[in-house]
Amino acid sequence: MKDFAGTPGTLTALALRISQCIFAAGSITAMATTTNFFNFTAFCYLIASMGLQVIWSFGLALIDAYALMKKKVLHNSILVSLFVVGDWVTALLSLAAASASAGITVLLFHDIGPCTYLSECEKYQMSVALAFLSWISIAISSLIMLWLLAAG
Amino acid sequence: MKDFAGTPGTLTALALRISQCIFAAGSITAMATTTNFFNFTAFCYLIASMGLQVIWSFGLALIDAYALMKKKVLHNSILVSLFVVGDWVTALLSLAAASASAGITVLLFHDIGPCTYLSECEKYQMSVALAFLSWISIAISSLIMLWLLAAG
Repeated sequence: MKDFAGTPGTLTALALRISQCIFAAGSITAMATTTNFFNFTAFCYLIASMGLQVIWSFGLALIDAYALMKKKVLHNSILVSLFVVGDWVTALLSLAAASASAGITVLLFHDIGPCTYLSECEKYQMSVALAFLSWISIAISSLIMLWLLAAG
Repeated sequence: MKDFAGTPGTLTALALRISQCIFAAGSITAMATTTNFFNFTAFCYLIASMGLQVIWSFGLALIDAYALMKKKVLHNSILVSLFVVGDWVTALLSLAAASASAGITVLLFHDIGPCTYLSECEKYQMSVALAFLSWISIAISSLIMLWLLAAG
Protein backbone atom coordinates (compact mmCIF):
# COMPACT_ATOMS: atom_id res chain seq x y z
CA MET A 1 0.00 0.00 0.00
CA LYS A 2 1.12 3.53 -0.72
CA ASP A 3 2.38 5.78 2.08
CA PHE A 4 1.18 9.39 2.14
CA ALA A 5 0.21 12.03 4.72
CA GLY A 6 -2.77 10.93 6.80
CA THR A 7 -2.36 7.16 6.40
CA PRO A 8 -2.48 5.16 9.68
CA GLY A 9 0.64 5.45 11.79
CA THR A 10 1.67 8.91 10.52
CA LEU A 11 1.84 12.18 12.45
CA THR A 12 -0.90 13.76 10.26
CA ALA A 13 -3.25 10.86 11.05
CA LEU A 14 -2.58 11.29 14.77
CA ALA A 15 -3.23 15.06 14.54
CA LEU A 16 -6.52 14.42 12.69
CA ARG A 17 -7.66 11.88 15.31
CA ILE A 18 -6.81 14.22 18.19
CA SER A 19 -8.67 17.12 16.56
CA GLN A 20 -11.73 14.86 16.05
CA CYS A 21 -11.65 13.97 19.76
CA ILE A 22 -11.29 17.59 20.88
CA PHE A 23 -14.08 18.96 18.67
CA ALA A 24 -16.47 16.12 19.55
CA ALA A 25 -15.75 16.45 23.28
CA GLY A 26 -16.27 20.22 23.02
CA SER A 27 -19.59 19.69 21.25
CA ILE A 28 -20.77 17.28 23.98
CA THR A 29 -19.66 19.67 26.74
CA ALA A 30 -21.43 22.69 25.18
CA MET A 31 -24.65 20.71 24.67
CA ALA A 32 -24.66 18.82 27.98
CA THR A 33 -24.27 22.02 30.03
CA THR A 34 -27.55 23.46 28.68
CA THR A 35 -30.55 22.99 30.96
CA ASN A 36 -33.08 21.49 28.55
CA PHE A 37 -31.31 19.67 25.73
CA PHE A 38 -33.09 16.42 26.69
CA ASN A 39 -36.39 17.85 25.43
CA PHE A 40 -35.04 17.69 21.87
CA THR A 41 -34.48 14.27 20.26
CA ALA A 42 -31.95 15.72 17.79
CA PHE A 43 -29.80 17.22 20.56
CA CYS A 44 -29.76 13.87 22.43
CA TYR A 45 -28.79 12.17 19.17
CA LEU A 46 -25.98 14.73 18.73
CA ILE A 47 -24.58 13.85 22.14
CA ALA A 48 -24.80 10.10 21.39
CA SER A 49 -23.16 10.52 17.99
CA MET A 50 -20.37 12.76 19.31
CA GLY A 51 -19.82 10.26 22.16
CA LEU A 52 -19.31 7.49 19.61
CA GLN A 53 -16.96 9.80 17.69
CA VAL A 54 -14.84 10.46 20.80
CA ILE A 55 -14.53 6.73 21.58
CA TRP A 56 -13.64 5.77 17.97
CA SER A 57 -11.17 8.62 17.40
CA PHE A 58 -9.50 8.17 20.78
CA GLY A 59 -9.02 4.45 20.06
CA LEU A 60 -7.47 5.16 16.66
CA ALA A 61 -5.32 7.97 18.12
CA LEU A 62 -3.86 5.43 20.58
CA ILE A 63 -3.17 2.96 17.74
CA ASP A 64 -1.52 5.73 15.66
CA ALA A 65 0.60 6.86 18.63
CA TYR A 66 1.68 3.26 19.31
CA ALA A 67 2.58 2.75 15.62
CA LEU A 68 4.56 6.02 15.61
CA MET A 69 6.49 5.10 18.75
CA LYS A 70 7.28 1.57 17.60
CA LYS A 71 7.79 2.79 13.99
CA LYS A 72 5.39 0.10 12.72
CA VAL A 73 3.53 0.36 9.39
CA LEU A 74 -0.23 -0.26 9.70
CA HIS A 75 -0.97 -0.93 6.03
CA ASN A 76 -2.57 -4.33 6.49
CA SER A 77 -5.55 -4.42 4.11
CA ILE A 78 -7.90 -6.09 6.64
CA LEU A 79 -7.01 -3.43 9.24
CA VAL A 80 -7.49 -0.60 6.71
CA SER A 81 -10.88 -2.07 5.64
CA LEU A 82 -11.94 -2.04 9.29
CA PHE A 83 -10.79 1.60 9.66
CA VAL A 84 -12.65 2.57 6.46
CA VAL A 85 -15.95 1.06 7.67
CA GLY A 86 -15.63 2.63 11.14
CA ASP A 87 -14.62 6.02 9.77
CA TRP A 88 -17.46 6.13 7.25
CA VAL A 89 -20.10 5.05 9.78
CA THR A 90 -19.00 7.64 12.36
CA ALA A 91 -18.61 10.37 9.69
CA LEU A 92 -22.14 9.80 8.37
CA LEU A 93 -23.63 9.68 11.87
CA SER A 94 -21.77 12.92 12.79
CA LEU A 95 -22.96 14.77 9.69
CA ALA A 96 -26.56 13.60 10.21
CA ALA A 97 -26.51 14.59 13.90
CA ALA A 98 -24.88 17.98 13.22
CA SER A 99 -27.36 18.75 10.42
CA ALA A 100 -30.41 17.71 12.46
CA SER A 101 -29.25 19.87 15.37
CA ALA A 102 -28.43 22.77 13.03
CA GLY A 103 -31.95 22.50 11.55
CA ILE A 104 -33.49 22.80 15.03
CA THR A 105 -31.12 25.61 16.08
CA VAL A 106 -32.12 27.62 13.00
CA LEU A 107 -35.79 26.86 13.67
CA LEU A 108 -35.56 27.98 17.31
CA PHE A 109 -33.45 31.09 16.83
CA HIS A 110 -34.38 32.31 13.37
CA ASP A 111 -37.72 30.90 12.12
CA ILE A 112 -39.67 31.18 15.39
CA GLY A 113 -38.01 34.35 16.62
CA PRO A 114 -34.77 35.84 17.93
CA CYS A 115 -32.94 34.04 20.70
CA THR A 116 -34.70 34.73 23.99
CA TYR A 117 -32.43 33.02 26.56
CA LEU A 118 -28.99 34.09 25.42
CA SER A 119 -26.60 31.70 27.19
CA GLU A 120 -28.51 28.60 26.02
CA CYS A 121 -28.67 29.96 22.48
CA GLU A 122 -24.93 30.46 22.26
CA LYS A 123 -24.27 27.00 23.69
CA TYR A 124 -26.54 25.29 21.14
CA GLN A 125 -24.84 27.16 18.30
CA MET A 126 -21.36 26.42 19.62
CA SER A 127 -22.18 22.73 20.02
CA VAL A 128 -23.44 22.51 16.43
CA ALA A 129 -20.40 24.41 15.10
CA LEU A 130 -18.00 22.09 16.96
CA ALA A 131 -19.92 19.05 15.66
CA PHE A 132 -19.44 20.31 12.09
CA LEU A 133 -15.71 20.87 12.72
CA SER A 134 -15.47 17.33 14.10
CA TRP A 135 -17.27 16.04 11.00
CA ILE A 136 -14.85 17.89 8.66
CA SER A 137 -11.84 16.25 10.31
CA ILE A 138 -13.41 12.75 10.32
CA ALA A 139 -14.43 13.26 6.66
CA ILE A 140 -10.79 13.98 5.74
CA SER A 141 -9.69 10.81 7.56
CA SER A 142 -12.44 8.77 5.83
CA LEU A 143 -11.43 9.96 2.37
CA ILE A 144 -7.74 9.21 3.03
CA MET A 145 -8.63 5.71 4.28
CA LEU A 146 -10.90 4.94 1.30
CA TRP A 147 -8.25 6.25 -1.10
CA LEU A 148 -5.58 4.10 0.60
CA LEU A 149 -7.79 1.01 0.32
CA ALA A 150 -8.75 1.67 -3.31
CA ALA A 151 -5.21 2.60 -4.42
CA GLY A 152 -4.06 -0.63 -2.67
CA MET B 1 -9.71 2.32 -15.89
CA LYS B 2 -11.52 -0.78 -14.66
CA ASP B 3 -15.03 -1.54 -15.84
CA PHE B 4 -17.57 -2.73 -13.25
CA ALA B 5 -21.31 -2.33 -12.51
CA GLY B 6 -22.20 1.29 -11.82
CA THR B 7 -19.34 2.95 -13.74
CA PRO B 8 -20.42 5.73 -16.15
CA GLY B 9 -22.04 4.46 -19.33
CA THR B 10 -23.41 1.21 -17.84
CA LEU B 11 -27.02 0.18 -17.32
CA THR B 12 -26.59 0.08 -13.50
CA ALA B 13 -25.31 3.70 -13.52
CA LEU B 14 -28.32 4.77 -15.60
CA ALA B 15 -30.72 2.97 -13.21
CA LEU B 16 -29.05 4.66 -10.19
CA ARG B 17 -29.32 8.12 -11.82
CA ILE B 18 -32.99 7.61 -12.71
CA SER B 19 -33.80 6.44 -9.17
CA GLN B 20 -32.03 9.53 -7.75
CA CYS B 21 -34.17 11.76 -10.00
CA ILE B 22 -37.42 10.01 -9.08
CA PHE B 23 -36.82 10.05 -5.31
CA ALA B 24 -35.65 13.70 -5.32
CA ALA B 25 -38.60 14.82 -7.49
CA GLY B 26 -40.97 12.90 -5.18
CA SER B 27 -39.44 14.61 -2.14
CA ILE B 28 -39.89 18.06 -3.71
CA THR B 29 -43.49 17.27 -4.71
CA ALA B 30 -44.44 16.04 -1.23
CA MET B 31 -42.86 19.08 0.44
CA ALA B 32 -44.04 21.74 -2.03
CA THR B 33 -47.68 20.63 -1.77
CA THR B 34 -47.81 21.41 1.99
CA THR B 35 -49.28 24.78 2.89
CA ASN B 36 -46.59 26.18 5.20
CA PHE B 37 -43.21 24.65 4.37
CA PHE B 38 -41.81 28.15 3.65
CA ASN B 39 -41.97 28.99 7.37
CA PHE B 40 -39.19 26.46 8.00
CA THR B 41 -35.67 27.24 6.72
CA ALA B 42 -34.72 23.54 6.73
CA PHE B 43 -37.69 22.57 4.53
CA CYS B 44 -36.81 25.33 2.01
CA TYR B 45 -33.22 24.06 2.04
CA LEU B 46 -34.51 20.52 1.42
CA ILE B 47 -36.37 21.69 -1.69
CA ALA B 48 -33.29 23.60 -2.96
CA SER B 49 -31.00 20.64 -2.34
CA MET B 50 -33.38 18.13 -3.95
CA GLY B 51 -33.77 20.52 -6.91
CA LEU B 52 -30.00 20.51 -7.41
CA GLN B 53 -30.06 16.71 -7.10
CA VAL B 54 -32.70 16.39 -9.83
CA ILE B 55 -30.74 18.66 -12.22
CA TRP B 56 -27.40 16.89 -11.61
CA SER B 57 -28.80 13.33 -11.77
CA PHE B 58 -30.92 14.08 -14.85
CA GLY B 59 -27.88 15.49 -16.64
CA LEU B 60 -25.78 12.43 -15.82
CA ALA B 61 -28.65 10.09 -16.76
CA LEU B 62 -28.71 11.71 -20.22
CA ILE B 63 -24.91 11.27 -20.55
CA ASP B 64 -25.19 7.61 -19.46
CA ALA B 65 -28.05 6.96 -21.88
CA TYR B 66 -26.08 8.58 -24.73
CA ALA B 67 -22.98 6.51 -23.90
CA LEU B 68 -25.09 3.32 -23.78
CA MET B 69 -26.73 4.04 -27.14
CA LYS B 70 -23.46 4.95 -28.86
CA LYS B 71 -21.59 2.18 -26.94
CA LYS B 72 -18.96 4.72 -25.84
CA VAL B 73 -16.74 4.26 -22.77
CA LEU B 74 -16.71 7.26 -20.42
CA HIS B 75 -13.56 6.41 -18.47
CA ASN B 76 -11.68 9.62 -19.12
CA SER B 77 -9.99 10.53 -15.84
CA ILE B 78 -10.84 14.27 -16.10
CA LEU B 79 -14.51 13.41 -16.73
CA VAL B 80 -14.55 10.94 -13.81
CA SER B 81 -12.92 13.55 -11.51
CA LEU B 82 -15.70 15.98 -12.46
CA PHE B 83 -18.36 13.32 -11.73
CA VAL B 84 -16.72 12.52 -8.37
CA VAL B 85 -16.73 16.17 -7.24
CA GLY B 86 -20.34 16.73 -8.38
CA ASP B 87 -21.57 13.48 -6.85
CA TRP B 88 -19.89 14.14 -3.51
CA VAL B 89 -21.15 17.72 -3.28
CA THR B 90 -24.76 16.75 -4.09
CA ALA B 91 -24.60 13.68 -1.80
CA LEU B 92 -23.39 15.74 1.17
CA LEU B 93 -25.96 18.49 0.55
CA SER B 94 -28.73 15.86 0.28
CA LEU B 95 -27.74 14.14 3.53
CA ALA B 96 -27.49 17.47 5.37
CA ALA B 97 -30.88 18.64 4.04
CA ALA B 98 -32.59 15.31 4.78
CA SER B 99 -31.13 15.21 8.32
CA ALA B 100 -32.07 18.82 9.09
CA SER B 101 -35.64 18.21 7.88
CA ALA B 102 -35.81 14.92 9.78
CA GLY B 103 -34.71 16.74 12.96
CA ILE B 104 -37.52 19.26 12.56
CA THR B 105 -40.10 16.59 11.66
CA VAL B 106 -39.21 14.65 14.82
CA LEU B 107 -39.34 17.88 16.86
CA LEU B 108 -42.77 18.84 15.49
CA PHE B 109 -44.43 15.44 15.65
CA HIS B 110 -42.74 13.72 18.58
CA ASP B 111 -41.01 16.16 20.96
CA ILE B 112 -43.68 18.89 20.97
CA GLY B 113 -46.66 16.58 20.68
CA PRO B 114 -48.48 14.17 18.38
CA CYS B 115 -49.25 15.26 14.84
CA THR B 116 -52.20 17.64 14.90
CA TYR B 117 -52.87 18.29 11.20
CA LEU B 118 -52.64 14.83 9.68
CA SER B 119 -52.22 15.41 5.94
CA GLU B 120 -49.34 17.89 6.42
CA CYS B 121 -47.64 15.54 8.88
CA GLU B 122 -47.66 12.62 6.46
CA LYS B 123 -46.36 14.82 3.65
CA TYR B 124 -43.42 16.10 5.72
CA GLN B 125 -42.52 12.54 6.72
CA MET B 126 -42.86 11.24 3.17
CA SER B 127 -40.70 14.07 1.81
CA VAL B 128 -37.95 13.32 4.36
CA ALA B 129 -38.13 9.56 3.66
CA LEU B 130 -37.84 10.14 -0.11
CA ALA B 131 -34.91 12.53 0.47
CA PHE B 132 -33.10 9.79 2.43
CA LEU B 133 -33.79 7.25 -0.37
CA SER B 134 -32.42 9.76 -2.88
CA TRP B 135 -29.34 10.21 -0.69
CA ILE B 136 -28.77 6.42 -0.47
CA SER B 137 -28.74 6.11 -4.28
CA ILE B 138 -26.45 9.14 -4.79
CA ALA B 139 -24.14 7.79 -2.05
CA ILE B 140 -23.81 4.49 -3.95
CA SER B 141 -22.96 6.42 -7.15
CA SER B 142 -20.43 8.59 -5.27
CA LEU B 143 -18.64 5.57 -3.79
CA ILE B 144 -18.47 3.83 -7.19
CA MET B 145 -17.05 7.00 -8.80
CA LEU B 146 -14.43 7.54 -6.08
CA TRP B 147 -13.44 3.86 -6.25
CA LEU B 148 -13.13 4.09 -10.06
CA LEU B 149 -10.94 7.20 -9.77
CA ALA B 150 -8.73 5.74 -7.03
CA ALA B 151 -8.40 2.30 -8.68
CA GLY B 152 -7.44 4.18 -11.86
